[in-house]
Amino acid sequence: MNDTFLKALRGEETPYTPIWIMRQAGRYLKEYREVREGVDFLTLCKTPELAAKVSLQPVDILGVDAAILFSDILIPVEAMGMKLEFSEKHGPVLSEPIRSRALLEKLTVPDPEDDMPFVMETIKLLKSQLKVPLIGFSGAPFTLATYMIEGGGSKNFLFTKRVMYQNHGVFSGLMEKISDTVISYLRAQIRAGADTVQLFDTWAGVLSPDDYRVFALPYVKRIIKELKSEGAPIIYFVNGCAGLLKDIKTSGADAIGIDWRVDIGEAARTLGKKTVIQGNLDPCALLLPREIMKEKVKDILDKARGAAKGHIFNLGHGILPEIPVENAKSLVELVHELSGKAIAR
Amino acid sequence: MNDTFLKALRGEETPYTPIWIMRQAGRYLKEYREVREGVDFLTLCKTPELAAKVSLQPVDILGVDAAILFSDILIPVEAMGMKLEFSEKHGPVLSEPIRSRALLEKLTVPDPEDDMPFVMETIKLLKSQLKVPLIGFSGAPFTLATYMIEGGGSKNFLFTKRVMYQNHGVFSGLMEKISDTVISYLRAQIRAGADTVQLFDTWAGVLSPDDYRVFALPYVKRIIKELKSEGAPIIYFVNGCAGLLKDIKTSGADAIGIDWRVDIGEAARTLGKKTVIQGNLDPCALLLPREIMKEKVKDILDKARGAAKGHIFNLGHGILPEIPVENAKSLVELVHELSGKAIAR
Repeated sequence: MNDTFLKALRGEETPYTPIWIMRQAGRYLKEYREVREGVDFLTLCKTPELAAKVSLQPVDILGVDAAILFSDILIPVEAMGMKLEFSEKHGPVLSEPIRSRALLEKLTVPDPEDDMPFVMETIKLLKSQLKVPLIGFSGAPFTLATYMIEGGGSKNFLFTKRVMYQNHGVFSGLMEKISDTVISYLRAQIRAGADTVQLFDTWAGVLSPDDYRVFALPYVKRIIKELKSEGAPIIYFVNGCAGLLKDIKTSGADAIGIDWRVDIGEAARTLGKKTVIQGNLDPCALLLPREIMKEKVKDILDKARGAAKGHIFNLGHGILPEIPVENAKSLVELVHELSGKAIAR
Repeated sequence: MNDTFLKALRGEETPYTPIWIMRQAGRYLKEYREVREGVDFLTLCKTPELAAKVSLQPVDILGVDAAILFSDILIPVEAMGMKLEFSEKHGPVLSEPIRSRALLEKLTVPDPEDDMPFVMETIKLLKSQLKVPLIGFSGAPFTLATYMIEGGGSKNFLFTKRVMYQNHGVFSGLMEKISDTVISYLRAQIRAGADTVQLFDTWAGVLSPDDYRVFALPYVKRIIKELKSEGAPIIYFVNGCAGLLKDIKTSGADAIGIDWRVDIGEAARTLGKKTVIQGNLDPCALLLPREIMKEKVKDILDKARGAAKGHIFNLGHGILPEIPVENAKSLVELVHELSGKAIAR
């Protein structure tokens, strides 16, 4: 068992800096595309054998130090009662977006074991096969709320902010229901065997710091607090975090994942030495020639070293489908080598 | 002549905080939509009488303290030799995106008076009618380069970063040509009568701080330095600025425009007391009920007061077409009243 990732997550000394990559099970891998040829995306998420298979691929192919459950952040949203479809063109589409009390009241707080059993089955399958730790995950409440209010992705999040600003009762009712869902969902994942869980706040960065403090952070804090007793460390990733770090510091998470649009040294200093930091190479930097990518990796390792309680290397956002797999392999090798792992050649 | 805006821009005492709104001449105004009914977007930009007419509308309707030239940031890109079209669905489309030396070499540095005379004519028309200062503008080099390399808008800016990382000669050659273009374009605007110019770096926020320092900022610095002798103050707006402020501080601009995803008090402290700050209400906050919008406006005014050399109120990004004009009027009134303007009732 390679437990370097978990040690780093607990702030313990590690022989090298562990790395995993957001969206590491994905379309940039030909082995993933082969699985997807025979099955649509939602079916893949809901078939434990296949979901486990693609979760394992990057561990075998890249040599990353952790696996992450293959799933979609909208799975619990569907379980709450919304109709979910994936369109090739527009991405996720949720019908009847939640912009009124009537629609809010139709939503339920699902029972993970009954309503999303395939997720826990995937986790159990993975745990029986993995030699690295397993990360479970959920979208954070604000991020899930944006999809539920917009009915899918968005550019300006105008509907979300309209509900948030003009119909605070509906907004906070929705955020509470989502938070309840996320708590039981992540608890079930941990009890099924996830060694840690990551909360993805992909869209929290579209809020002003003042709004983030009122409309997003309190729900994250509650989730983290209620999950503490499960004993698994919690990672909180915020995309577009640069203006929010002082507030994010109070989230209670064991580790904070940051995007690439902030200096990791500065972010670590703002977050303080009680927090492990995760990140933060620009996903597009995987296009760099190896020698220049090496400089960037070294720079991130140097800036993070000593500035935080610990460092887990990652991209600042998900890996893009256009990235050659060789470059992703190079990244993992570079992080390992440059941070002190003895490499057998 | 209401010169409150120019005084604030120079850091002088003003009786109240001036305000203008990015995209204040735009689709949220029925008077603008009426003009657009008879003419397509590019023709509007290129017809001085009409461009001047829509530039004047928000001054009359909202009572803002400055007018901004109505134009599009891609006008100089078209003048450099690229074919520009606007599609209702996809926004701007530039054919033959610049990803090779051959295409780069076909681009010219336009002569503003010969190749974009309508811009300077619009400015002269406006100056003969305006009772508030006039802002000229241009896209900043990195932002213009993204459109030229992507062939339009983008989500991940993968083509831009590919050229930037893998073909540095083409990237820097392009940035130099754009910078030369922007310098002569803004110089011509100032000489035609623009009282100040704003450089819009709408997409610089997609770069890591290290990349921003290498691939975007040096060109901005050169432009600002070369324009100093014209005597007009220069505003530099960076969208997604939160992680870049320490670098932006060195730009040489007289005023820095910031987006809403950063606390204006913190931003002002980072930028220091030699810089005027402009911003930074969330464009969606115009959806708020007036009493709550008032709190937000007051908060921004309070945070900016004394923290910078001066403050010009603005949104953190352009006003959205969905905003009721009454709410925009309320914003202008609130900024004026709360910052001390005596209002005749």
